Amino acid sequence: MTSKPISNERIEQNKTDHMEMILRPEEIEAESFRIIAAELSDMGITLPAETDPVIRRVIHTTADFSYAETMRFSENAVEVLRELLRNGARIVTDTQMALSGINKRKLADLGGEVHCFMSDPEVAAEAKKRGTTRAAVSMERAAAFPQPVIFVIGNAPTALLRLRDMIESGEYRPAFIIGVPVGFVNVEYAKECIMELGNAKTVPYIVNAGRKGGSNVAAAIVNAVMYMV
Amino acid sequence: MTSKPISNERIEQNKTDHMEMILRPEEIEAESFRIIAAELSDMGITLPAETDPVIRRVIHTTADFSYAETMRFSENAVEVLRELLRNGARIVTDTQMALSGINKRKLADLGGEVHCFMSDPEVAAEAKKRGTTRAAVSMERAAAFPQPVIFVIGNAPTALLRLRDMIESGEYRPAFIIGVPVGFVNVEYAKECIMELGNAKTVPYIVNAGRKGGSNVAAAIVNAVMYMV
Repeated sequence: MTSKPISNERIEQNKTDHMEMILRPEEIEAESFRIIAAELSDMGITLPAETDPVIRRVIHTTADFSYAETMRFSENAVEVLRELLRNGARIVTDTQMALSGINKRKLADLGGEVHCFMSDPEVAAEAKKRGTTRAAVSMERAAAFPQPVIFVIGNAPTALLRLRDMIESGEYRPAFIIGVPVGFVNVEYAKECIMELGNAKTVPYIVNAGRKGGSNVAAAIVNAVMYMV
Repeated sequence: MTSKPISNERIEQNKTDHMEMILRPEEIEAESFRIIAAELSDMGITLPAETDPVIRRVIHTTADFSYAETMRFSENAVEVLRELLRNGARIVTDTQMALSGINKRKLADLGGEVHCFMSDPEVAAEAKKRGTTRAAVSMERAAAFPQPVIFVIGNAPTALLRLRDMIESGEYRPAFIIGVPVGFVNVEYAKECIMELGNAKTVPYIVNAGRKGGSNVAAAIVNAVMYMV
């Protein structure tokens, strides 16, 4: 209500107000998604409506817009995953970090559970004996569940390769595979295997092509789809 | 020992041999670091000897070479952090994911501990009452430890801003700050505050400038320095 020029003090005050204004977690998140939407639009990227909330949450988790170009979804993947989660899914992760990142309150509300067998001493012993990875043995443990299992793989390409073998031989069919391991060895190959086989044998998947991914990305995908239920 | 051209079958066999050969976790890791070194060299990037193992492990965790350009270290940061970890440090994280990602066996070998107050119902209640974040209140809990504390912040810029306030007012001095929150709101500003104040008041830090970071990056930094002890 004044026509005087805004003082430095006033600018500082506004800054402070602004900082205080956006300390509330739900506002920080809303503002983050507004920024992501604006920058995607500036880049001329329009995401398909079905996969948009998943890709945006991965960008929110990583501050890395390259995911807008590299995420791959089997047909109706988000709808399939949403229905599994709505019905109280059993999730198996390949890292404690991915397990930690999944919103357990939301999962419990939906009647779901999450497991990780990587710290199980029996799994470690068996992997050592057979000269394979704990992740590969963990997949076999998960496959023993009588219920449908959503596999959430953020770290170990060998987990994906073991699933590939089990699907190919016909001994097991995962309900869903989130295949986003990160890394430089076996990672791209393992993801390609899951996409090829998923398309050929209709095992639904969400994969991030290339080297990038991680437990944080894996958890973000699960959370994004849970929040759509 | 044959001069016949290599058959497709042989190539497949070699592929299989190769796949089997690099299923051992320690070999996968060694090969990954070889690839990272080769690509950094191709990019003409030479990392300083002190910070090199930390930056490489972050690239290993993210498959994102941009960290080679954006990670910032206060003077002798790696040496300072290594000494703290060698002497059995108390670590406080701002996420369960960062806590999960830290190698607890190695930490215990060194006599250290890791804590995260984010799921503490009292912290949540106090944050709600005061209209601030759980992360900010968690920092105050951590500051109540009589021992030196290494702060490992992979998510919440408000954790860094609360530390900034405590340092600025002189009420508390962190032993070390790993400041790598990820995101779009407050994140770059909070990191700049920590670097400025760290330089002015000699609070040692490792920060990733810009938007990128995360709990996985935070844990990777801790692990990289622990492996140097």
